Amino acid sequence: MIDLSQTISSNTIVYTLDMVGVAACTIAATILAKRLQFDVLGAFFVSFLGSVGGGTLRDLLLNRHPIFWLHDLNYIHFIIGLSLIVQIFYHYVERLDKALRWFDALGLAAFTVIGVESALSRNMSAPIVMLMGVFTAIIGGVFRDIVCRQIPLVLQKEIYITASLVGSVYYLLLLQTGINEWLRSISTLLLIFSVRMLAVYRGWNLPDITLQPKEKQK
Amino acid sequence: MIDLSQTISSNTIVYTLDMVGVAACTIAATILAKRLQFDVLGAFFVSFLGSVGGGTLRDLLLNRHPIFWLHDLNYIHFIIGLSLIVQIFYHYVERLDKALRWFDALGLAAFTVIGVESALSRNMSAPIVMLMGVFTAIIGGVFRDIVCRQIPLVLQKEIYITASLVGSVYYLLLLQTGINEWLRSISTLLLIFSVRMLAVYRGWNLPDITLQPKEKQK
Amino acid sequence: MIDLSQTISSNTIVYTLDMVGVAACTIAATILAKRLQFDVLGAFFVSFLGSVGGGTLRDLLLNRHPIFWLHDLNYIHFIIGLSLIVQIFYHYVERLDKALRWFDALGLAAFTVIGVESALSRNMSAPIVMLMGVFTAIIGGVFRDIVCRQIPLVLQKEIYITASLVGSVYYLLLLQTGINEWLRSISTLLLIFSVRMLAVYRGWNLPDITLQPKEKQK
Repeated sequence: MIDLSQTISSNTIVYTLDMVGVAACTIAATILAKRLQFDVLGAFFVSFLGSVGGGTLRDLLLNRHPIFWLHDLNYIHFIIGLSLIVQIFYHYVERLDKALRWFDALGLAAFTVIGVESALSRNMSAPIVMLMGVFTAIIGGVFRDIVCRQIPLVLQKEIYITASLVGSVYYLLLLQTGINEWLRSISTLLLIFSVRMLAVYRGWNLPDITLQPKEKQK
Repeated sequence: MIDLSQTISSNTIVYTLDMVGVAACTIAATILAKRLQFDVLGAFFVSFLGSVGGGTLRDLLLNRHPIFWLHDLNYIHFIIGLSLIVQIFYHYVERLDKALRWFDALGLAAFTVIGVESALSRNMSAPIVMLMGVFTAIIGGVFRDIVCRQIPLVLQKEIYITASLVGSVYYLLLLQTGINEWLRSISTLLLIFSVRMLAVYRGWNLPDITLQPKEKQK
Repeated sequence: MIDLSQTISSNTIVYTLDMVGVAACTIAATILAKRLQFDVLGAFFVSFLGSVGGGTLRDLLLNRHPIFWLHDLNYIHFIIGLSLIVQIFYHYVERLDKALRWFDALGLAAFTVIGVESALSRNMSAPIVMLMGVFTAIIGGVFRDIVCRQIPLVLQKEIYITASLVGSVYYLLLLQTGINEWLRSISTLLLIFSVRMLAVYRGWNLPDITLQPKEKQK
């Protein structure tokens, strides 16, 4: 007999996580669009790209059809509604710059967990699972930055992809233990969130691994 | 008994619309490529991207295979032939700047209708149908602008996505009536074209919905 | 009875070619990423995009699943390992600028042959086969340049797409003869490589086909 309550509660977690990530990305993308003076629909477009772009590429690569937002219209309605609110109250939201970093880190964490779980449900190997976690978490932002002609920040000097990878590895390790699904998702989420926020406040970067030629070291 | 004449005529309309859109996008992309001093093949590449990019993404998202230009070689031949002509007569075509706007608006209208009909043929819901209309109409241009390092104009201050959306809504409303297919496509095309051209000549923009904080309104 | 030795040797050629192309693109992408001060993981990401991006788009367009690097993890391991080495010895690799051009040309040649053979294995028509050769060879570099905000060089004034196309046509012609598979792949590879290197050293460009208006010709 299937434990329905378990299934529902697990799906609910994933879905809630996903919406948290979508919300974080929609807010970030709408603010960027406003700065670039895009109009209402342009901001919708960039929000849509930034928040479901990563998951869409993941689904295309894994050949998962239909793409999630094609059959669950909540995504479109949620993105449009939230982006509209952010646009109306733009001058107030803009002041919350610091708060947004927390939200952005939450998005990174949520999307990584979603990506990892998607790849696992398609029986992918560990490296692909980690890659799909990272892709789901960062590609939307990369797409958004490309359309808005920014050099994607996530590729530069910040612990961003790293936080996502640390979380994926942790999730895969937990999978070897018998730990319950709910705890696995939530603790991974918290780990990624913590690594990212610590990196922001401590100014953590990855070390430079490039060897310096002798003459330059003087 | 199937009304063959009806089927053929309806397919012919769609196909003609599609080629009009492809022509408009090829001309616009080739002119941009020449300005950036791309060579002959670079201009072909950008033309191809600009004119079939939107439909290709739509087909990938809807999982429609084979992609339309893989089995109908007319697209490739038409794009290469037209881009070649535009390149040869570039200094003459460039002068037709105003005429190009009309052509561009026709492309927007044609691709929206094509996108809407593609999504309907896959039994998509109304919001997805509207989205696919917009995607088919604008994504090619967005791709083209990204490769050419322009900020995509369609996302900024012009009634462009709006015209496409107005047309999609109108098409979906007509679908509720018993109106004949031919009339539905053509009248939607004319509506989008008119909205776009009126916006160009009257300088229409979407209103700014952002609330201004009190202190700034003085 | 199947000639196993033939099958294996042919697959080995294709696989070796592919890895040569991946190596060339990984080195080029890592160097670009280091110049833009991307961190270790950012450089991995750009290397991955630059080296398997073209093949991935080709597989998505041709609906070939699973995407090649999803089931053959050698690609990921090879790219990460090589990119790591290039990053560590960046200041030494950078000096090999001229040598890199040879490597890059080899990548162009290898990826074209792979792309042509992929499309042929899906029974595509000649124009699509040529297009897939070009796409596989150049799209990864175009993606890389887009993320790194460079105008894609391949679209500008250099014999690059041309070399790829010349090779595709030559391959398709050889296919009409009874020539053995091994010779077909290798001679196409050498042809593309030679055309590209000659273009680099002789400064070959495609002729400008644009007609100059009379008044400008004085």
